[in-house]
Formats: sequence, C-alpha cells, structure tokens
Amino acid sequence: MPEPIDTVYPIILCGGTGTRLWPASRESMPKQFARLVDPRTSTFQASLERVAEAGVFAKPTVIASAEARFIVAEQCGQLGIAADILLEPQGRDSAAAVAVAALHAAAIDPQAVVLIMAADHVVPDTRAFVDAVKAAAVGARAGYTMTLGIEPTRPASDYGYIRRGAPIPEAPGAARVEKFVEKPDRAGAEALIADGALWNSGYFLFRADLMLAELEAFVPDVLDAARSALDAAVTDLDFVRLDGAAFAKAPKISIDYAVMERTARAGVLPVSFPWSDVGTWDAVWQVLDHDAEGNAVRGRVSLVETKNSLVHSQGGGLTAVVGLEDVVVVSTPDAVLVASKARSGEVKQLVNALRASGEPEADAHLRMYRPWGWYQRIDIGERFQVKRIQVVPGGRLSLQKHYHRAEHWVVVRGTAEVTVDDRVVLVHENEAVYLPIGSMHRLNNPGKIPLELIEVQVGSYTGEDDIIRVEDIYGR
Amino acid sequence: MPEPIDTVYPIILCGGTGTRLWPASRESMPKQFARLVDPRTSTFQASLERVAEAGVFAKPTVIASAEARFIVAEQCGQLGIAADILLEPQGRDSAAAVAVAALHAAAIDPQAVVLIMAADHVVPDTRAFVDAVKAAAVGARAGYTMTLGIEPTRPASDYGYIRRGAPIPEAPGAARVEKFVEKPDRAGAEALIADGALWNSGYFLFRADLMLAELEAFVPDVLDAARSALDAAVTDLDFVRLDGAAFAKAPKISIDYAVMERTARAGVLPVSFPWSDVGTWDAVWQVLDHDAEGNAVRGRVSLVETKNSLVHSQGGGLTAVVGLEDVVVVSTPDAVLVASKARSGEVKQLVNALRASGEPEADAHLRMYRPWGWYQRIDIGERFQVKRIQVVPGGRLSLQKHYHRAEHWVVVRGTAEVTVDDRVVLVHENEAVYLPIGSMHRLNNPGKIPLELIEVQVGSYTGEDDIIRVEDIYGR
Repeated sequence: MPEPIDTVYPIILCGGTGTRLWPASRESMPKQFARLVDPRTSTFQASLERVAEAGVFAKPTVIASAEARFIVAEQCGQLGIAADILLEPQGRDSAAAVAVAALHAAAIDPQAVVLIMAADHVVPDTRAFVDAVKAAAVGARAGYTMTLGIEPTRPASDYGYIRRGAPIPEAPGAARVEKFVEKPDRAGAEALIADGALWNSGYFLFRADLMLAELEAFVPDVLDAARSALDAAVTDLDFVRLDGAAFAKAPKISIDYAVMERTARAGVLPVSFPWSDVGTWDAVWQVLDHDAEGNAVRGRVSLVETKNSLVHSQGGGLTAVVGLEDVVVVSTPDAVLVASKARSGEVKQLVNALRASGEPEADAHLRMYRPWGWYQRIDIGERFQVKRIQVVPGGRLSLQKHYHRAEHWVVVRGTAEVTVDDRVVLVHENEAVYLPIGSMHRLNNPGKIPLELIEVQVGSYTGEDDIIRVEDIYGR
Repeated sequence: MPEPIDTVYPIILCGGTGTRLWPASRESMPKQFARLVDPRTSTFQASLERVAEAGVFAKPTVIASAEARFIVAEQCGQLGIAADILLEPQGRDSAAAVAVAALHAAAIDPQAVVLIMAADHVVPDTRAFVDAVKAAAVGARAGYTMTLGIEPTRPASDYGYIRRGAPIPEAPGAARVEKFVEKPDRAGAEALIADGALWNSGYFLFRADLMLAELEAFVPDVLDAARSALDAAVTDLDFVRLDGAAFAKAPKISIDYAVMERTARAGVLPVSFPWSDVGTWDAVWQVLDHDAEGNAVRGRVSLVETKNSLVHSQGGGLTAVVGLEDVVVVSTPDAVLVASKARSGEVKQLVNALRASGEPEADAHLRMYRPWGWYQRIDIGERFQVKRIQVVPGGRLSLQKHYHRAEHWVVVRGTAEVTVDDRVVLVHENEAVYLPIGSMHRLNNPGKIPLELIEVQVGSYTGEDDIIRVEDIYGR
C-alpha cells in the first residue's frame, strides 16, 4: 500500500559518541542509547516515538555505525517499532549520511519529504513537534530545504543561529534563511537574539529529489560515494550494510557546509517548543526536573547543603555531596566524574587525556552489550576474573575456546544450553558447569526468560582477546 | 627481667569510629585502622611504631573495642610487634580507659610512667616525638600529670588549647598548666596564640600510682568500675576481655573533665613537631604531600584544571575531577563522597542522616574483616549474591548452615579444606565445590598462602543473618 502523498519519511542519524557526557556516555554505549534524561527511554528511543504517529510518518530509517547495530535493533525492539537500519562502515560526517537518506527515500518515492533528525535531542512536547514538522513539510513540498529554528531562551554560545529573511508565501509562518551563523560568543548571541535570529536545531526537511539535485551540484563526490555504497550494500540479518570501500570515498563534510549554507532554497520555520541537544552535563541538568534547591538527582543520592547540582548514582552505589553548588557528580561502577557545571564542556578534554594514556574507561563501559545480551566484569584478580553474563531468550554466543583460562559457569536465573566439546547439557538455576582450558564451548539460552550466570575465569591470562571464535550466528 | 627505671609504658586508646572521614572510615573499619594518610600503614600501626624504641618504651598496651580485636591483632602481627590487648565490652569514654591503663601498668610497677596515646594521630617525626616523651617523663616522674602541648601553626578552632603557667623546676622546658581552654572560635584562637597558648594534643604522661590517687579523689566510681572489670577480666585467645557488667558501671566521662581540669598537678611540655589529629578530610589533605597545584591524590585519578583538592580513588576505579578547587572526593566501590573541603566537618551530619535512613553504607564497609580473613560482596541480584572470600593461612570459618541458600565455591588461589556434612575434601585452585541448602559446612585454609575463592549464593534470601553457627574457634 503506497504511503499517502503528505507522509514524512523520518531518518534518524545515530552517529557520535557523546564524549562530553562521560562516564555515562562512552563509545561502547553512546549518549543517544543511554538513559540519561528519562530513566525509561534513551533519546534515540524518544526520537523514534516522536515520529511514530501513523498517517503523518512513514516507517523510520535509522542510520547508525556498524558497532551500534545491536543496540539499535534491541532498542527498536523494546518499543515494538520496526525501522530500516542502514549501517555506515565508518563515519563520513552528515552530508554522506543525508545523501544515503535521500537516496533511500527516493527509491520509494522520488518526491518523498524526508525529515532528518539527530538521535540525541530532547523535545518533551511531541504534539508541538509533530505540528511543526507538518507545517515545515509544506515548505519542503514547495521546494525548500526547511530547518526548524528554535526561538532562543538564553544567549547560548554553544548553538549555531539562523537569521530569518523574507517570508515564504507557500508555507505560512516560514521564512527564507538569510544566513546561518556559527556558534557566537555571548555578546554575539545577545545581538543575534535582539535581531530575531533562531537556534539551528539540526532538524531538516526536504524533498528527496531536490536534495539529490543539490548534492549533485555542490558535492558530487559525496553523492557518488553514497550511491555506490547503497548499490553495493549487503543485507545481513536485519541490517543493510553500506559497502565499505565505496562509502570510504565520501569526503567528510557536514550537510551544513555541503548544502545548507550554499543553497538558495533554505527555509526556516520558527518554533518555540522546549528543545535541547543535551551536549553537556550542564545541558542535561537544565532539561531535568529540579527539587527546591535546584538539584536533579538519580539513584541512591544523599545531599547536605548542596544546590543547583546534578548528581547521578548508577549501579547501586551511594553518592553523597556536602556543601557544594553548581557541580555535576556522575558515579558509575568503574568511573566517577566530579565537575564544575559551568565547565562541564571540558569533560571532552578529560576523555581525550584518558584515551591518550590508554585508560580503558575512556571508551569501554563495564557492562558490554552484545547481540546476545551483555556481560559485566564484577571482579578481577591476579589469575582470575569474574563476570555476570545475561543472555536474551534465543541468544547464542559464538562457538569458542580459550588458550589460557578455564571457566566455571553458575546459572543464577533461567536455563542454559551448554555445549562442551561433543556434549550438550542443560544447566538450570543453581547448577554449575566446568569448561576446561582449550575445550570448545558454546552458550545458548533456549528458554523464555533471560538467562543469567556468574562466570569465574581462572588462568594465567583473562583478557578479551583470548577468544578463538569458530562459529558465530551474528557474523562477527 | 624488670624494665629499667626510666621506661615509659605506652597505652594506645583505639576508640572512635572516625565518622567525619566517611566513606573510607566506617564503624566496620574506623580511620585509625585504615590506611588513609600513609598507603602502607594505618595511624594505629604508626602509633605502635612511634613507641617501639627498646630501652625507652615497655611493651605497648592497646585498649580497643571488642569488635576491633581482630583488626588490632592482625595489624600488630603485620608489624611483628607484641602488645597486650585489653578489650572494652563497650565504650565508656576516656576516663575509664585511662583508669584501666593505670591499673594495668601499676600491676607491673606502681610507679610506672604511663604514656596515653590516641591511635589516630599523625606525627611524622618519631625522633622529635620520642625526645619529647623523654623530657615529659621527667615531669611525670616528679609527680606531674604531663601533657604535650603543640606550638600552634594556625588559629585552629577545632582543637582545645592550654595556657601555660609557671615553669616546673624539676622538668626543664615544662610548665604548669594554668588552664585548659575548650575549642575557641577563630578570634579566640588568635588571642590564645598571641598569649602563648598551646594545642592540647591529648598525649598524657603520668605515674600510675598518682593517677590512681587522682581518680580515687575525683571519680571514684570510674576507678571502682575499672578495677572490678579488670579483676573479673577473662583471657580469650590473645585478648584480655574486661568484664562487661562491671565496666558498664563506669560513668561516661572524659579524662580531661574527670582529672586534668581539676588536678593541681597538671603540667605541659611545649613541643613544635608537626602533629595532626586528622579529624576531617581537610586535615588529611593538610598532612599529605601536594603536587604543584596543591592536590593530594591516591589511586587512579585524573584531574583537569583542579586545585587544592584531595582525590582518593579506592578499589581500582577511575575518579576524574574537572574545573574545581578546594574539594574532597573519596570514591570507594560502594560509596562516593564529594565535599567542599572547608565544610568537610559536616560529613558527620551526613553519616548521621545515612544512619537515620538505614543505609548500610553508613557503618558497614563492602569488605568485611573477620578473624579468619575477609569477605566482600561483588555482585547481588534478585535471587543470588556473589562474594570474594579470602582466608588467611590457618584461618577457619565457623561450622554453619543456611536455610535459604545453596552455595557454589570456586577456588581461585590456594587450597581449601571443605567440610560438607560428613565429608572433608581438599579443593584446589580452579576447582569448585557445591554446598546444598541445609548442608552443614565449614571452610578452612590448611595451606601456607592465603586462600581466595568466589562464592556464588543462590536462593530466596541471601542476607548475613541466615547463618546458623554450630561451632566457632573465634568465640563468636
């Protein structure tokens, strides 16, 4: 059944690692997939829900890195939302992603109106958002590349601005873009606001055919690479993998530089709903509810004489703050951040320094998500390591062996089907199984509830790289 | 062999829980036994070493709570220092402890010169300390109850002060005490210092017979209770347990109020060595070495634009601070403290609040020391709990059973002797043993190196109170 003529095709871009929200956001679980703002859903999931209204939006398309594919699939699955998932073999900035999005939509309907969304924005008022998209789509259908321009609420120096030009007659409320302005200083921001400029939200709406024409005109290399990568794409499980060699040829350039600042057809719809890109912990604090002292807390937190602070305690521990104001404290089982709220943007430099000195916590979370579930180290010693492992129903780890460690598995929840060399055994709650060094083994959850087990590794070396994978259903 | 006539009998008082140094110091491991200042020794151990010089000091006596007895014994053992360990069934403040100390020393030599020391002070210069004790002992032998008075280095409002009176002719450098002054405000402290007053260090030296006479005169109830408690004391393993019923009759009063402020024989020896009672995190920061930015760090710490702060990261995690000054950050595996350094005294209120709301982290450490070694919870879930257990060579847990949980033990280091009902088995590294619900079991380290094992408990209830102890070599 064809989509109605006024359907909008949402494309959610999931790139970025959210370094400035370390230690909650790390490369192994970037902020758009973490539950930083709403404890029940990630901003990626909130983005999916924002474009779920039938009759307004077509099936969403998600463009993500290959590494994030299982998180994307799991989080779509949790909401029961079907999405096309396109995988970038490597990040080539937003122009290449938009080119892929436009080609993907044009293949369904050349005149499809595409909505480009970031996965990490917070927009609490879905109704206002959908109304704005509908209004902007009128401009897009009339041939404009539309942006949503947020009415500023403070002289922010961490957002780009848009100066409005003449009204667009075909689209009530919309105006032509006179100029995109880079992030200003505070005085510049005040002048821009006095002048009626808007924040650049990064939401774009355009007709697929017209965007393809603009890309062809301004950055033909990007479009060629995107087209070749999509033509040679491979479908793998539920994912469409863009061709790596082809996509690598796309120049790295943002859609702003590539098209928006050069097109004669840029339009903007002013909107005034609350919006944040939650780029820093300060921004997270701003979008959260506060108590009477201005504090936003999560988890087991105790405060004494503390004001205007964000305190998140993750993983069950207790976090206490005494006699401070305007601080951010984020404690996780393996890393703690304490920062001046005003300087929370400098967390980026911190993470760069941690990477430079090779600290694993810079990029890896203690809980590592895998297509079959997750594992988390809970203890480590000189010749042993202990992990908690959860396997989703139907999940199946690779067939593997280790050269340097034996493993003891104690099932604490659910039922495991364990292959050890040529034996297959069912291991139930409160039962254990032993895997000698060098044995070929595999773990599988044949049941209906998650399987949880404690793994005790004993041996001279317990690193992740002592895994010899013989077979894997997830193509790793 | 009798001690030489000029020997000093050191008595170390180990009371106190160091609440203001939470979360490193908790009731289950108070600050005097923790390695807060020197990563190699506790302040209790440093106190033992301070009075170790043969020919100057007799065998030390430690007065501790019954709960702390195994920590005291273990820390003495680590240094190879023998001590008499007297256990208070409950804390009755310092007058009762001093009475016990005086009685204990008088039983060896009625004219013994006793040195009363707190276990939680930091005195880096042992030579200067020993010289001061020798000089003060001259006054004590002449019949004065001597204190060491520290020359103030700042107008501290968290110490008591001593005003000096006329010189004591028999003790060069010493003076009579004109007046003990309670903790003053800052202006009062400045006036006192201008007037030549000294900090009251809490170190006392006196002749046992004379102190007993003073106690008899001023607080006979305290002395009676102490004498009865010592007369009825029971020797238990290496400890002397004061009789609980008798000791409970001692009124709770400090030695300062009971004797020092009332005696006509109080003397003070001015000393100028560095000294701190490390009562708050601010005080800990002051005695530690600082880097060029004034920071004192321990463990895995990363700082960006941070000054004059104390950052301790315990248990292997990473702790990062960005853009702050004059803060204290102490992170432990189960609790994190972030405080304004200037307000670190308010940690006491925090801990009181945590106690009031029943948070286990208020008093219990994650790692719990026992006479046989220690255990630490490393994970907990709905129907399971995982612990790491270390048993010292020769250590032997109680014979016990559980009504609500089975246990799996995986040995990761050393060798375990495990009794399960009527079987006794040796379990070696990388071997496991299963203890069904209700089985009678016991764990024992028969080897020469510490035994470490991972315990996975599975059952409907995994609390510490589901332990039915049938037999215990430690008299618990």
